[in-house]
Amino acid sequence: MSENIAVLGLGLMGTALAETLLAAGHRVTVWNRSAAKADALAAKGAARAATAAEAVAAAPLAIVCVLDYEAARAVLDGAALAGRTVLNLTNGRPAEARETGAWVTGRGGDYLDGGIMAVPQMIGQPGALILYSGSRAAFDRHEATLKLLAEPRHLGEDPGLAPLYDLAMLTGMYGQIAGFLEAAALVASEGRPVREFTETLLVPWMHAMAALKPRWAEEIEQGDYATEVSNLEVNRVGMANLVTAFEEQGVKPDLLLPMKEILERRVARGHGAEGLSGLIEELR
Amino acid sequence: MSENIAVLGLGLMGTALAETLLAAGHRVTVWNRSAAKADALAAKGAARAATAAEAVAAAPLAIVCVLDYEAARAVLDGAALAGRTVLNLTNGRPAEARETGAWVTGRGGDYLDGGIMAVPQMIGQPGALILYSGSRAAFDRHEATLKLLAEPRHLGEDPGLAPLYDLAMLTGMYGQIAGFLEAAALVASEGRPVREFTETLLVPWMHAMAALKPRWAEEIEQGDYATEVSNLEVNRVGMANLVTAFEEQGVKPDLLLPMKEILERRVARGHGAEGLSGLIEELR
Repeated sequence: MSENIAVLGLGLMGTALAETLLAAGHRVTVWNRSAAKADALAAKGAARAATAAEAVAAAPLAIVCVLDYEAARAVLDGAALAGRTVLNLTNGRPAEARETGAWVTGRGGDYLDGGIMAVPQMIGQPGALILYSGSRAAFDRHEATLKLLAEPRHLGEDPGLAPLYDLAMLTGMYGQIAGFLEAAALVASEGRPVREFTETLLVPWMHAMAALKPRWAEEIEQGDYATEVSNLEVNRVGMANLVTAFEEQGVKPDLLLPMKEILERRVARGHGAEGLSGLIEELR
Repeated sequence: MSENIAVLGLGLMGTALAETLLAAGHRVTVWNRSAAKADALAAKGAARAATAAEAVAAAPLAIVCVLDYEAARAVLDGAALAGRTVLNLTNGRPAEARETGAWVTGRGGDYLDGGIMAVPQMIGQPGALILYSGSRAAFDRHEATLKLLAEPRHLGEDPGLAPLYDLAMLTGMYGQIAGFLEAAALVASEGRPVREFTETLLVPWMHAMAALKPRWAEEIEQGDYATEVSNLEVNRVGMANLVTAFEEQGVKPDLLLPMKEILERRVARGHGAEGLSGLIEELR
């Protein structure tokens, strides 16, 4: 069944969202601050709205994907939101999502927040994931449409949850990237083939180490960091050795240094016999 | 065929190595600075040597697994190494391995260095990996024995390679751990279930992100960091947003801060349109 959907904000991501909905046979009404960005979509069958308010008026579901939450609020400011669902896929933080959710519901609209765990090229492809939070009723109503964009996961009624989990996943990603970059720099310091190392050794190792994390998460939930495997004192010594090796190889260990510091701090506080999951206490 | 193998150093790892070899039916001669640590192994059939030199004399292959390379050299100092293979599984750095390799070969021995990518509990189990470097002939001669301990991977004749790759893999691991800990702290800051988040969202995401790394490694090998996906300027803005979110949630972003800094530095140097792999240039 063809639905009518408004897409506000036609950057790379907004355009990918609109294109995917059009390709699935939906009627899509688009709006962008600078109108020229709608040209290609209009050529593919999208309806143009002259204003954001007109776009919202044209469809029961308005997807907003702009630079930040301030811009999202500015875009929606003159629109009649009563009876509409606003799906905000703009990047932001939990506090902003809650504030914007209250603002939309205060005007009679349903609010869904979303965190897109994909680059624009992945929209509509297998492997793309979008986290949702906010109105479960609105999510259920539009789930078939949302499935066209990416695998949808609704996390709860609190609009802050999608950005919270989105940011937590990005955090995990940046840590992994930091480790990869330092590892690659170490291997490259000897002129060794970085790709072969990455493919045959590092990636399988990263997969194996990632698989241990649910057990660590359980230790964190229980606040019980006892270990018989590799305690903080052993890791403190190993990390000191690692940083010395970086210096010997002429590679900057900058991305690892805070891990070295919290290992030292945690051991100095008398927790040397605990496992690595206990380091979370130093982040609170 | 039963071989005779000496194991010098009976900490948790040395004991696990000796036990695995004994269980496979090999004759094992053990030595430890404090002799009491050999008791349990002797009860399982190991021969005791009174000195390290006596242990080395008893077997063509001597496995050394002690605290550090200085200790390894001290242990081997009085032994006759001519015609023997020394396999040093002590944790260390490339420069130390090269120095120790030259020292052993200078005394007429064959030298193999090894990096154990496993905790003692994993020795002899599927999933354990040991990296080797140094004499290929010695590796080939003892490969059947080495396979009992873990999957063996010989990296090249240069003894420094096993510690180099070992340390690079640990580096990747610490980055991943840092990302996990910060992510878990963010989720925990809202009282959300850390284990469920880790299992259903973070770990699959980490697997997907790890799988992208061989392509990044190729970009690094080619020094070509052009991207159409997610450039450094986009990541700089995203990271600033992330750090603000940590502050709002009352979680310390300490482990992420150097990544924020090098993102800012790299963009300030005019590389904002490049991809994340280009950050490696800031580590050199």
